[in-house]
Amino acid sequence: MEFDLIAMIRARMDVARTDVALGIGDDAAVLELPPGQQLVACTDTLVAGVHFPVETAPEDIGWKSLAVNLSDLAAMGGESAWALLALTLPESDSQFVERFAQGFAELAHRHRVALVGGDTTQGPLAMTVTALGTLPIGNALTRKGARAGDALYVTGTLGDAAGALRLQQRTGGREHGAAGLRPSLSSRLNRPEPRVAAGLALRGIASACIDVSDGLLADLGHVCTASGVGAELEIEALPLSSALKVAFDLATCRELALAGGDDYELCFTVTNAREADMHTALAHAGCRVTCIGRIVAGPGVRVLDAQGNAVATPQAGWEHFAR
Amino acid sequence: MEFDLIAMIRARMDVARTDVALGIGDDAAVLELPPGQQLVACTDTLVAGVHFPVETAPEDIGWKSLAVNLSDLAAMGGESAWALLALTLPESDSQFVERFAQGFAELAHRHRVALVGGDTTQGPLAMTVTALGTLPIGNALTRKGARAGDALYVTGTLGDAAGALRLQQRTGGREHGAAGLRPSLSSRLNRPEPRVAAGLALRGIASACIDVSDGLLADLGHVCTASGVGAELEIEALPLSSALKVAFDLATCRELALAGGDDYELCFTVTNAREADMHTALAHAGCRVTCIGRIVAGPGVRVLDAQGNAVATPQAGWEHFAR
Repeated sequence: MEFDLIAMIRARMDVARTDVALGIGDDAAVLELPPGQQLVACTDTLVAGVHFPVETAPEDIGWKSLAVNLSDLAAMGGESAWALLALTLPESDSQFVERFAQGFAELAHRHRVALVGGDTTQGPLAMTVTALGTLPIGNALTRKGARAGDALYVTGTLGDAAGALRLQQRTGGREHGAAGLRPSLSSRLNRPEPRVAAGLALRGIASACIDVSDGLLADLGHVCTASGVGAELEIEALPLSSALKVAFDLATCRELALAGGDDYELCFTVTNAREADMHTALAHAGCRVTCIGRIVAGPGVRVLDAQGNAVATPQAGWEHFAR
Repeated sequence: MEFDLIAMIRARMDVARTDVALGIGDDAAVLELPPGQQLVACTDTLVAGVHFPVETAPEDIGWKSLAVNLSDLAAMGGESAWALLALTLPESDSQFVERFAQGFAELAHRHRVALVGGDTTQGPLAMTVTALGTLPIGNALTRKGARAGDALYVTGTLGDAAGALRLQQRTGGREHGAAGLRPSLSSRLNRPEPRVAAGLALRGIASACIDVSDGLLADLGHVCTASGVGAELEIEALPLSSALKVAFDLATCRELALAGGDDYELCFTVTNAREADMHTALAHAGCRVTCIGRIVAGPGVRVLDAQGNAVATPQAGWEHFAR
């Protein structure tokens, strides 16, 4: 059945790219990198019941499995090009696969990503996507370039996906989907939009960048550690959506924004000299950004209130096997 | 814990490659492809209890998860360079990870493969490896170049891994490992050696190539389908190891060789004009090969006895979710 499944998925993924010398159907894909470009590569696994509620629509799982990877490429300033999909299914379920492929293909089309390899295996529902992209040599946005004095920014709004999940858990999963949840929150959980255009716009401008997947505090912590700096976050500056503020009190909104995770926004730093360029570039990319603080010399991430006093923070972002 | 796990794995995988501009530790890896080369990419998942017995030693699982992917690259004539590892574990088990990493690293060192990305998640034990390699432009060994009249070859011996598995199942798994099984068979099951050198040697020589993972009949069938040809296999020519012949009667040996799977040998075709070159190249690569038949015009794979009569064949190779 491996071959039938892959054929079903292929049939929905007709992104044609001239840089695919050999796609699905052989032992491996053969791909062509344009001259002057580096390859960017990442991999991420979603496990049913861990990374998405088991009742999630197959279309949404398909979309999200690719989105989380495109978000990683975007955070590097990479242009996404190709993907490989390893799908593990409890049983041969062509309806699930068709719907999964539908969601995967929708996002793949949007970003012109060609599915070039796959593997289907029997086992508990999970999927690993590897995303490959390109980057002009030396243009990668890394985690390690933040310097004291840099301004700290985040794209879009934070906490929406975690808010949707919390609402869903409250209703015991019975009212899942758009009907039971505020649609704008649930779409952030189920159909995250990787910030590909923003990542491209930040090439050569941002001093450091990461995607917010484990929660702002945790991911900003990674930037600080990699860069050997600290950060001060202004809690009143956190960008919160109207939908989130309607659904939760302000303290909960902030907790979700700081530690909820699954945001797939970009958190980045920029020197003062480049801030104007950054605003111009992101406006062209159609991406809202908010300044949420600054990079400082000392280690660690501190959250400050309007008076500049440190406030207690929720536990650091969700980690797998959190201790 | 994601980061601790990855750090543990990293510590054992110190393959230094100058083409890794940015390895593990950021949102994605940044890699450099030499000029004139194409990228070769494949992905394969192993699930506990499906692709390896649950009692398999963690070192062997680590080795095998990389080996099955390097085998796919080898079948394309690719030179392996980089790998990404997505590991799903039921619980935080540092001892398992350390042993898994040990086996993975052993094989990675042997082929100078750098681990450049990873993801660890919680869930039922499974792992997906994506292997990336390089290939001079236009030199890929595909499945579709076989032509009527080509000679059909296979590297090494067939059926050993399937034989080891059958012996292991007979003993109810109680005598697993080298102690209970004939070591040369069990090493074929647990520590398959991807035919990387043979794949490189066959560049520009073989007309078609595939790695034997699902069983010779199934994989040869893929070559025939992709090439629009058929094949005649001489059952007496199948290369069988002494260990296999000691452990099983001849009929069982042949059944295991035809349909057992997990061989990770290369099955390839070559025009008569290139046969001498092929023997020279594979002798230099230190790889034994056996002519097992020929490509014919008609569709399908027929197995012939010494008199040239068709013989009944075991069911086609193992497929996931076989119907």
